[in-house]
Amino acid sequence: MQTIYQFQTAQNIVAGPNSLQLLGEKLNLLGVEVASALVITQPPMVDLGFVEQIVSQLEANGISVDTNTNILPEPTLENIEQVFEATAGQNYDVLIGIGGGSVLDTTKILSVLKTNDSSVEQLLGTDLVANPGVPTILIPTTSGTGAEVTPNAIVTLPDQELKVGIVSKYLLPTLVFLDPVLTLKLPKPITAATGMDAFTHSLESFISTKANPISDMFALESIRLISSSIVEAYQNGESIEAREKMLVGSMYGGMALTSAGTAAVHALAYPLGGKYKIPHGVANSMLLPHVMKYNMDAITDRLALVAEPMGISVQGLSNSQLAEKVVGKIIEWTNVLEIPQDLKNYGVKEEELPEISVSASQVTRLLNNNPKKLSLADIEAIYRQLL
Amino acid sequence: MQTIYQFQTAQNIVAGPNSLQLLGEKLNLLGVEVASALVITQPPMVDLGFVEQIVSQLEANGISVDTNTNILPEPTLENIEQVFEATAGQNYDVLIGIGGGSVLDTTKILSVLKTNDSSVEQLLGTDLVANPGVPTILIPTTSGTGAEVTPNAIVTLPDQELKVGIVSKYLLPTLVFLDPVLTLKLPKPITAATGMDAFTHSLESFISTKANPISDMFALESIRLISSSIVEAYQNGESIEAREKMLVGSMYGGMALTSAGTAAVHALAYPLGGKYKIPHGVANSMLLPHVMKYNMDAITDRLALVAEPMGISVQGLSNSQLAEKVVGKIIEWTNVLEIPQDLKNYGVKEEELPEISVSASQVTRLLNNNPKKLSLADIEAIYRQLL
Ligand SMILES: NC(=O)c1ccc[n+]([C@@H]2O[C@H](COP(=O)([O-])OP(=O)(O)OC[C@H]3O[C@@H](n4cnc5c(N)ncnc54)[C@H](O)[C@@H]3O)[C@@H](O)[C@H]2O)c1
Ligand SMILES: NC(=O)c1ccc[n+]([C@@H]2O[C@H](COP(=O)([O-])OP(=O)(O)OC[C@H]3O[C@@H](n4cnc5c(N)ncnc54)[C@H](O)[C@@H]3O)[C@@H](O)[C@H]2O)c1
Ligand SMILES: [Fe+2]
Ligand SMILES: [Fe+2]
Repeated sequence: MQTIYQFQTAQNIVAGPNSLQLLGEKLNLLGVEVASALVITQPPMVDLGFVEQIVSQLEANGISVDTNTNILPEPTLENIEQVFEATAGQNYDVLIGIGGGSVLDTTKILSVLKTNDSSVEQLLGTDLVANPGVPTILIPTTSGTGAEVTPNAIVTLPDQELKVGIVSKYLLPTLVFLDPVLTLKLPKPITAATGMDAFTHSLESFISTKANPISDMFALESIRLISSSIVEAYQNGESIEAREKMLVGSMYGGMALTSAGTAAVHALAYPLGGKYKIPHGVANSMLLPHVMKYNMDAITDRLALVAEPMGISVQGLSNSQLAEKVVGKIIEWTNVLEIPQDLKNYGVKEEELPEISVSASQVTRLLNNNPKKLSLADIEAIYRQLL
Repeated sequence: MQTIYQFQTAQNIVAGPNSLQLLGEKLNLLGVEVASALVITQPPMVDLGFVEQIVSQLEANGISVDTNTNILPEPTLENIEQVFEATAGQNYDVLIGIGGGSVLDTTKILSVLKTNDSSVEQLLGTDLVANPGVPTILIPTTSGTGAEVTPNAIVTLPDQELKVGIVSKYLLPTLVFLDPVLTLKLPKPITAATGMDAFTHSLESFISTKANPISDMFALESIRLISSSIVEAYQNGESIEAREKMLVGSMYGGMALTSAGTAAVHALAYPLGGKYKIPHGVANSMLLPHVMKYNMDAITDRLALVAEPMGISVQGLSNSQLAEKVVGKIIEWTNVLEIPQDLKNYGVKEEELPEISVSASQVTRLLNNNPKKLSLADIEAIYRQLL
């Protein structure tokens, strides 16, 4: 537990089913006159009609709108630079990102590229952004990353076979819409993987060495919401109640990790995303039970506190029994949610483990938050369990 | 329960014992260059050495500092205008308020007076502030109002014998320090009254017609923290654990009320503050059990949910029994905390009740949030119980 701790978040949040229909009305929350806007997204959000819902409200307010749909999943540095180049001649009063974490992160980075004389590469790291960005509106369509409320954005570096973060208060948006209607058609595998990513944010924040009273509140409430809805959201995707719990829960996960940070699960996930293009949520879900088992002796009492919010009946059980049940429940979910379990399916070869272990060991920003240190051999042993 | 709901808060929060010692180091969170600062406070915060702790850190960073200690408790419109006049010739890069709600509200108002061509009077109401204010740092020294994280500021209007709010997103601060060390010497009666104010924020937010998943989380966690520490903070003021729980709990109360609003307790408290100068926390504490009894039939199930976070043993009790226990616990606290119970002590005369009831009935911004409508006769009957 940290004794001095810090929290920061999005300036305004508008939430609830159909809240996106209030976009036009809520533009005043931006605190600036808006004459032009850029919508940043991907084709599925166009096909599902979400982009039209945004554009029509903006145009009804006399705002001219451009749209860029060229964001790649888990965007590379090159992809982000291309999007920047494509819009470099234009000045927009607001950037609107609608999509999963890939779109939201790109929007955040674009916002500060436009106001800073820096390349993406120069911003990689913590607090390297000099100036505030163009105001942003972030609208998540996955219940996963919590990127709508974090000061982080993740960039894939294929050359280095890694994913790296930009961390800056200037990445926080001015306005967030949290509309669960947008997630009703999220495909099952994405519901599963992104939902487990959100759960991982909260659980890692809760056991982080930087855990504190603020992050704990968000983490536990997030765990409570996700635990009560993840299976339902997967099996019955049209349930607005389950989808709303997942979306609010994933936002709280973002709030928790903003204050406490994620840890070894995320550190070990980055090389799997960077080198093998394993989706972020899948990589986390595969790693989560194994990293928790590794951490177990250092966090038994903390994990035990998570049992009740996960809906586990706690009566008469010792802390170590409860902690085991928490890990058991996570494994149960990965089965029910049909999360892939074998790295071989993604082309990972045993002889490559030493190399990716070295990559993971360099993610010290996150490994430092882990309650138990990991040697190179420890990291490799965890990967090996996934082959 | 509201289905579409909204949340906004302070941009940055730094919390924990002795966190104020990081002021100099955390100035970068303001995102602007700071060459000059105005500290706004009251004599107790000077005497306790808090102002010196701030000034020395600012000066060590090459910042020139002015200090104004002329803020009155529960400031009147005239008092706020006087403070504004006294500093009108000066441009400051940041305004730093250190004190209870009276100081924090004054700092918030001063910040927007400096950037808007409006009188205080013209800003009274909702969303009437046109421009962002000077950046503010708010440092609460009572665990009460939560004003450090709300978009509200309260002005006393002695002529109209009322208190009225300014509500604007531009009243939210850039940076908050939540340092429980600053509350260790808070006198017993102020600990009691401000602590009950904080509890009232959370309970009123929880039963508000605008209650929602976000406000509920803050309200319940606030209730949990305050319930486990208010008596200890009163009886053993030097307990840093109890003081920290109270301070975090009161901030969460502010976050809850930002999203859900307070209700009839606060509406009825305003004339008592405006006309009879009854301290805000005292007025709320006196009214709280009576208003909750009045509301009872409309909120039995909601009140029952509050029992467990209040530390009441819930086993085998019906919702109406639990709700009764909640009100019983509040009454027990008002006794243990020696909250005054009789309006006569403050010079309130029976024949004045109709007039102050009319005043209270005009606070529609808050009465609209109450789960049960109050007629003039209902309001008067509640006041009568306090004579
Ligand atoms: N900034 C942060 O704090 C943070 C935290 C965690 C992860 N991340 C990053 O976020 C990225 C992952 O984001 P993600 O997990 O949300 O996945 P994603 O954004 O890559 O989306 C996955 C796929 O789902 C599609 N999709 C999104 N919403 C949809 C909808 N409503 N209906 C149908 N299809 C939809 C997308 O087009 C995409 O093909 C990674 O790069 C990861 O590193 C960022
Ligand atoms: N903005 C909001 O959201 C909001 C919410 C609720 C109440 N309020 C307003 O806040 C005001 C009340 O604020 P309050 O209850 O914090 O009381 P307060 O600010 O008036 O302080 C009460 C007294 O305690 C003294 N004091 C404060 N901190 C001290 C410390 N650490 N040690 C010793 N003495 C200390 C003050 O000098 C003052 O004399 C009212 O005007 C009320 O209407 C605002
Ligand atoms: Fe993640
Ligand atoms: Fe209050």
